[in-house]
Amino acid sequence: MTYRAPVPDILLALNHGAGLEAAVKAGHYGDYDGDITAAVLEEAGRFATDVLAPLNRIGDQNGIKLADGKVTTAPGWPDAYKRWADAGWNAVSGPEAFGGQGLPMAINAACTEIWSASNMAFGLCPLLTLSAIEALDAHGSDELKNIYLAKLISGEWTGTMHLTEPQAGSDVGLLRTRAERAADGTYRISGTKIFITYGEHDMTDNIVHFVLARLPDAPVGTKGISLFLVPKFLVNADGSLGARNDIFASGIEHKLGIHASPTCVMTMGDNGGAVGYLIGEENRGMQCMFTMMNQARLGVGLEGVGIADRAYQQALAYAQERKQGRAIGKTGDGADAIIVHPDIKRMLLQMRAMTAAARTICYATAVALDISVRASDAKIRSDAAARAALLTPIAKAFSTDIGNEVASLGVQIHGGMGFIEETGAAQHFRDARIAPIYEGTNGIQSIDLLTRKLGVNGGASVWALLNELSDVVKQVEASNDPAFGTTGAKLRDALAALDRTSHWLLEKLGNAPNEALAGATPYLRLFGSTLGGCMLASQALAARDLGDTLGDPKRFVTLARFFAENVAVQATALEHVVVDGADAVIGADEVLLA
Amino acid sequence: MTYRAPVPDILLALNHGAGLEAAVKAGHYGDYDGDITAAVLEEAGRFATDVLAPLNRIGDQNGIKLADGKVTTAPGWPDAYKRWADAGWNAVSGPEAFGGQGLPMAINAACTEIWSASNMAFGLCPLLTLSAIEALDAHGSDELKNIYLAKLISGEWTGTMHLTEPQAGSDVGLLRTRAERAADGTYRISGTKIFITYGEHDMTDNIVHFVLARLPDAPVGTKGISLFLVPKFLVNADGSLGARNDIFASGIEHKLGIHASPTCVMTMGDNGGAVGYLIGEENRGMQCMFTMMNQARLGVGLEGVGIADRAYQQALAYAQERKQGRAIGKTGDGADAIIVHPDIKRMLLQMRAMTAAARTICYATAVALDISVRASDAKIRSDAAARAALLTPIAKAFSTDIGNEVASLGVQIHGGMGFIEETGAAQHFRDARIAPIYEGTNGIQSIDLLTRKLGVNGGASVWALLNELSDVVKQVEASNDPAFGTTGAKLRDALAALDRTSHWLLEKLGNAPNEALAGATPYLRLFGSTLGGCMLASQALAARDLGDTLGDPKRFVTLARFFAENVAVQATALEHVVVDGADAVIGADEVLLA
Repeated sequence: MTYRAPVPDILLALNHGAGLEAAVKAGHYGDYDGDITAAVLEEAGRFATDVLAPLNRIGDQNGIKLADGKVTTAPGWPDAYKRWADAGWNAVSGPEAFGGQGLPMAINAACTEIWSASNMAFGLCPLLTLSAIEALDAHGSDELKNIYLAKLISGEWTGTMHLTEPQAGSDVGLLRTRAERAADGTYRISGTKIFITYGEHDMTDNIVHFVLARLPDAPVGTKGISLFLVPKFLVNADGSLGARNDIFASGIEHKLGIHASPTCVMTMGDNGGAVGYLIGEENRGMQCMFTMMNQARLGVGLEGVGIADRAYQQALAYAQERKQGRAIGKTGDGADAIIVHPDIKRMLLQMRAMTAAARTICYATAVALDISVRASDAKIRSDAAARAALLTPIAKAFSTDIGNEVASLGVQIHGGMGFIEETGAAQHFRDARIAPIYEGTNGIQSIDLLTRKLGVNGGASVWALLNELSDVVKQVEASNDPAFGTTGAKLRDALAALDRTSHWLLEKLGNAPNEALAGATPYLRLFGSTLGGCMLASQALAARDLGDTLGDPKRFVTLARFFAENVAVQATALEHVVVDGADAVIGADEVLLA
Repeated sequence: MTYRAPVPDILLALNHGAGLEAAVKAGHYGDYDGDITAAVLEEAGRFATDVLAPLNRIGDQNGIKLADGKVTTAPGWPDAYKRWADAGWNAVSGPEAFGGQGLPMAINAACTEIWSASNMAFGLCPLLTLSAIEALDAHGSDELKNIYLAKLISGEWTGTMHLTEPQAGSDVGLLRTRAERAADGTYRISGTKIFITYGEHDMTDNIVHFVLARLPDAPVGTKGISLFLVPKFLVNADGSLGARNDIFASGIEHKLGIHASPTCVMTMGDNGGAVGYLIGEENRGMQCMFTMMNQARLGVGLEGVGIADRAYQQALAYAQERKQGRAIGKTGDGADAIIVHPDIKRMLLQMRAMTAAARTICYATAVALDISVRASDAKIRSDAAARAALLTPIAKAFSTDIGNEVASLGVQIHGGMGFIEETGAAQHFRDARIAPIYEGTNGIQSIDLLTRKLGVNGGASVWALLNELSDVVKQVEASNDPAFGTTGAKLRDALAALDRTSHWLLEKLGNAPNEALAGATPYLRLFGSTLGGCMLASQALAARDLGDTLGDPKRFVTLARFFAENVAVQATALEHVVVDGADAVIGADEVLLA
């Protein structure tokens, strides 16, 4: 079954849950007035349904081939990429000075969800290009920008991120790839990188690699890392392609999922060293990397949302078709569609509600990023930057965990058919599994949330957010709408648990950091489920005021209620896990090392 | 990395958590005195490590081939099966009258975990044979038993279960395979079955199929189903193999996991109909099927335990080797093994504690099954039968959900390497995914727990179990051992939540069954995590009394504490989900059908 972008759900989440409409009205988006949002998303949905979704299974089955350093993608993929880039989709949020459309990142975030849902392995390629664009735009010299930026923005060339080495994964400071200064001001890079997504492919004429490496005299650790732009083909002064650079795919990985995405081992320096151009300053590569990774982290969170929605759509269709058993109270021969069974309904609602919550969190992150660069007021920009920084690890980890959980429920709803590859549910399950791992594992995200977001400024950005969420709860309670059930009370309890847990962790960070770190993962889950619950409630309130613009508004209320009563309700248990569970984790050595 | 059976953990769970030792002492096991338990398990562990574990990845990579109706298993598999059967492992708990060793099912349950952990796709074959043995022994004629039982028990021939058809999965009453009475008292079976595990293979000379089919004059639904024994080769009076029967593999499925296990489409009747022999009475096949399925359900629960333990062992080894980042407080160059990080410790403990809880629940089910047939006192037998009936759906669903969750954590601990197939973690993740689906989906198990276990005799078997668990909590509290932390309080709260939820559901079953059914899955989870927590605490108390017999007893206390404080602590949230969450599920149509 194909994929159809859920444009009404996306619009509600974007404009109301994530606050795009209010931010536009407040003038934080400059001359963007929001009028074309719906049209852009409708068009993206059409392209995804017509072109990308049909290639998803073809890509999974064909995978990619490597021979003589050349990667061949699955049939139809280069053509689809060309059509996609030609239609301007790579340039949605790129800077206008270099040919971009200058639309909000929030719009591109919704598009990213749509590309990922229709074809996650495909959507991954522009995700990396986008990160490369960010890094180059923020830290690159004008000369490099003039040569590379427009072609990356148009999608004529793609970008990559070269971070990981066999001994340097989460701990990027351990990397060994060497950069030697050359007489002409460029550098010669040599070393081996692994897990390089779209490190080599046949969809564009050139590939622009962004490589972390270490100068001979660099300090050890992360303070001695520099970022280099290393093109596959050098570029002549007139913009035409020159010599092949000394960077080659020497292997591709056989992976659990995203088979159509080439995950390459890249070797530099077999022929004297790859020519590299410094981005930013020597030994300051980590800052550039974080610029790349923040964008990429949000993008990966959106992959979680996309794959979850795809799995949901497929499971819903199956549950409406597959007939087994009778509804309670029905008699006679025959069978009903399994969607009549409460247990199946629960699974479908769980899938849809979790997807909707993750979606809104991701979009809110994008809106905060937009405001942090677009608003005219410096205080509003810096508050938004703090909000984006706080939300990014939640957007990445919560959404990708949900991508896995929802894809697994999708398999379950299919019963035995879910385990058979031709059904397609299993592919979503396999594809989704990478998202909690790459661009910083979800454990790393949780530690980032705890130590670099909660743990700075006395938790100021957390308290600011909790105050806003508290207002949402008051609005739900003030609505007196019985359709909300116990949503208000459940979210109030969840917020109180999140508040207490945040204070406890902040104290422990100071005097017993291992105890705080033991609670990092359950804390992020507590944060995500409370935040998601409040955001769904907030957009449900908005939907009630919109009438039938986005379809029957009652469904948004029911969904918010389901989430509050069935997911956000775990908050107190998660608080106990963080606060009471740490001792057992710290005392684990007698179990684990026995 | 290979697999080593965790014999001390297994012995503690079997003898103390599951109560085998007490039952033996009470005389419920007849002349089985328990002396050889450890030796049998050590030997099973050796065979698994030496022979089965090395074939696990070979089987995954090679899969199986079907050509001209013949299935070829992976290299080394037929030989391994022969060695396994020759060593007597198929006959562990088989009746002595037909060559079995007559050992307790509890011992065989521990062996089943070991086979599944070392090679799940291999272990699946004897699991089905065991179910066939049960059905034949319980319901077959003496003539059929004399011909087939000894060879099924020795493992010279394997058995299968033919239930599913394309239109009849969970709703077996919809099956259409036809059985026509023949003049000689046998039957001619025709039809197509799907998802038939080891329906065809090259590991034995004959395969004995147990086929559900419908007589021409049978009532519709489950009351018109009969069970037939359909051998691949007919058997002559002297026991030699005769003509090839009209039952053939016409297809094999391409699956997400357990690639080495042939999942066959079976066609009967292309040549006049397969010769079948009635098991039990006409139209009473469902009773026979339940005999087969109960054994199989416990077996599948043990697959969940086994794959979880395998994933844990592999993740633990990786976490001890892989170096990234520094422990808090450590300075200088270099990196520590990732097991020093609290977030990694939490994941490993979660894996181990969940695995241990599921293991004990499964073993307790087996002990109850043993007592239900071995005890001399009729009341004790019937109480044990009720206990086994109550525990079976929990053993199946809770353990297989845990198998998935633990396998997923195993991938996560490996980081990017976990997504690469050659590492092996991904295979466990893929293999584990079938267990919540087959032998009755976990949704079906939850509904069974709710309606056929809680919902009979006013919940008598539930209240009896809760009383016993309450005694465990009192013992933990009376121990005054600070190493238990807040275990007593957490389990007390969990038991209270389980008790309240059970009463609420029992009432709703009578007056609002859809509301009760909406809570079936979270109820089973609540039951499993509370039960598992109490069982781990119970065996930790026993370990304290055993001294160092099974290694440092402190680790069992720490593990019980971790489970109580980090898993069982979800009880109140799950109670809310059941009690407060039903309305939103029942009101789902406005969301799902919009």
